[in-house]
Amino acid sequence: MIYFDNAATTWPKPPEVIESVCRSFLDYGANPGRGAYKMAMDTSRLIYNTRETIASFFKISDCNNIAFTRNTTESVNIGIKGVVRPGDHILYSSLEHNAVWRPIKSLEKSGVTSDCFQVDAEGKVDFADLERKIKPNTKLIACLHGSNVLGCVLDIAAIGEIARKHQIYFLVDCAQTAGALPIAPEEIGVDLLAFPGHKGLYGPMGIGGLYVREGLILTTIQEGGTGSNSLEAAQPEMMPDRLESGTVNTPGIAGLGAGIRFLETIGMEEILRHEQQLTKYLYEELAQIPNIILYGPHICQERLPVVSFNIAGRDSNEIGWTLGKDYDICVRAGYHCAPLAHKTIDTLNRGVVRISFGIYNQPWEVEKCLDAIKIIAK
Amino acid sequence: MIYFDNAATTWPKPPEVIESVCRSFLDYGANPGRGAYKMAMDTSRLIYNTRETIASFFKISDCNNIAFTRNTTESVNIGIKGVVRPGDHILYSSLEHNAVWRPIKSLEKSGVTSDCFQVDAEGKVDFADLERKIKPNTKLIACLHGSNVLGCVLDIAAIGEIARKHQIYFLVDCAQTAGALPIAPEEIGVDLLAFPGHKGLYGPMGIGGLYVREGLILTTIQEGGTGSNSLEAAQPEMMPDRLESGTVNTPGIAGLGAGIRFLETIGMEEILRHEQQLTKYLYEELAQIPNIILYGPHICQERLPVVSFNIAGRDSNEIGWTLGKDYDICVRAGYHCAPLAHKTIDTLNRGVVRISFGIYNQPWEVEKCLDAIKIIAK
Repeated sequence: MIYFDNAATTWPKPPEVIESVCRSFLDYGANPGRGAYKMAMDTSRLIYNTRETIASFFKISDCNNIAFTRNTTESVNIGIKGVVRPGDHILYSSLEHNAVWRPIKSLEKSGVTSDCFQVDAEGKVDFADLERKIKPNTKLIACLHGSNVLGCVLDIAAIGEIARKHQIYFLVDCAQTAGALPIAPEEIGVDLLAFPGHKGLYGPMGIGGLYVREGLILTTIQEGGTGSNSLEAAQPEMMPDRLESGTVNTPGIAGLGAGIRFLETIGMEEILRHEQQLTKYLYEELAQIPNIILYGPHICQERLPVVSFNIAGRDSNEIGWTLGKDYDICVRAGYHCAPLAHKTIDTLNRGVVRISFGIYNQPWEVEKCLDAIKIIAK
Repeated sequence: MIYFDNAATTWPKPPEVIESVCRSFLDYGANPGRGAYKMAMDTSRLIYNTRETIASFFKISDCNNIAFTRNTTESVNIGIKGVVRPGDHILYSSLEHNAVWRPIKSLEKSGVTSDCFQVDAEGKVDFADLERKIKPNTKLIACLHGSNVLGCVLDIAAIGEIARKHQIYFLVDCAQTAGALPIAPEEIGVDLLAFPGHKGLYGPMGIGGLYVREGLILTTIQEGGTGSNSLEAAQPEMMPDRLESGTVNTPGIAGLGAGIRFLETIGMEEILRHEQQLTKYLYEELAQIPNIILYGPHICQERLPVVSFNIAGRDSNEIGWTLGKDYDICVRAGYHCAPLAHKTIDTLNRGVVRISFGIYNQPWEVEKCLDAIKIIAK
């Protein structure tokens, strides 16, 4: 099997991650933060240490400003709904995933309005369009850092500057870039950073996180037991308790910690260099095949290890299906939960085939895939 | 180490559960429902099969009416906020955990009102009080099935009958009873059943679920990518997609499936019989120790394998701490995130010490614990 669906989730996971998850059942099996005995305190320490690992990775000064969530989607929902009130206005980019678009659209029922600012297929933000669409009641700019469909990267530092200038909250969805590109929210004015554990950070599915800027107290969408202020009816204001009601995903957190340590041992730049070599090779070879249509930034620009393409006159799902069935090559076809991106590149009628790399991919796998695509494209 | 904190989370987990989680990384490592290749489809099948295992366990006719969540708290939040609107009234019991109480209280900000109906320390519902408190705008009765503090069990079938008679939605939090007592929501008029994966069902921390009665379409508190209806801005109405945005916790789901299979192999009645023997022994011996105050139903009544006590004139936290530090016995002291229950039994000033059993506990452990308590109580 050749696995080229790393933008959906990285696979295989590093052995350290699997080991760490397994060990968590043995050594960190108590409910953390809710007992005074040794294993409960050990488990609390594991959770805290992982929080610190993440904080150090994203250059966040206080790890308590990071809450663990189920996934990036939950992080985005908590972030958006935590700052936006009826009557507010939100701006989002023309490349958003449904994780950002759907929560925003759902808020329209409660009197929130929104507008989409233009970002092209290469990730170039139309800053004039963005500034023009800012209204007196614009409360939030929410956008992704990198596109899961196109692999392009947005200049979030520049967007952050505009947000700060207009005193607008700024939420970044770094589902595709956490672990691929350096991100330091506190250095570039990001108020809310939603990240997955199971993609570029090499942790298990089922764990993600949300960084909340120091001092920003979100309205909650969930409340419950926190092991703190237990006698109070109100959810504690203190982070991370405010956003972490109920039992946390200890095995997931253990695995995520191991994933980040794995990543840091190799080095994020080294991993990206490896993946970009594969990306460059694939991109350039695909460009030689007749009838292949490539999407996203040209290979000489900054881009993520994601290559999306179509074969002229063919349905993307058919190509994806054939690659899986006849060649045991795992890719994703269709819309990738990002209709806005497909509208932007005019592929709403058929989607695209997406190949995405991880640290374990090898050049021979790309060669096999190219051979298969050549046959299919004939 | 003697582990007596099974009401917080069961430990150890069965070897089958750990194995199943580990194998999920190898065999079911793709993002389910989002790819057409074999491993993605295998992973989807694993998720579906676990959903079916749960449905069969709770005698639910269509497994698609079960959504996976992060924990019971999330399930309760989704359930309550999914049916209640501004202006509605909610009833909850006097034994609720903060997982139920805090979401209800948070809704007061948006014009929801609520009242508490009386349940005594033995789990006896004051039905006259409950019926008296029903108003024309009462939309929901939300209550736990069994108390995490007292081990008493509420007659949810009788509450369900009242709810149906008045056409009120009925949400049950079975955090303490899932896996301990038979529960069949469709047979007793439960519209929403919130359950944990990591307690009596012996799955990993980080996974829970919510059953939603067929045809009931909840307002969502989270929206995002579902792999279905991808081009639509609106969250799909179809279950379970409606409540499962973003990547699911595949390892957690794999472990939960194995946990339920483990449970069913031994038999729920057999497990409870074992735990109740330990409970009876502990309870009766504790009752002999001078200065011991016991809470909850008498041992000859139906009860969960939970024993809460205090030593007259002593702080519960000090006792819990000493049991952990000097005897390596893991218990929980304090409020257990359930101030209402402590108000009901008048222990708001000091909490209680809670001992809770699981399938792996043994009589010699209870003896050791009794020896320790005798010394501490002197």
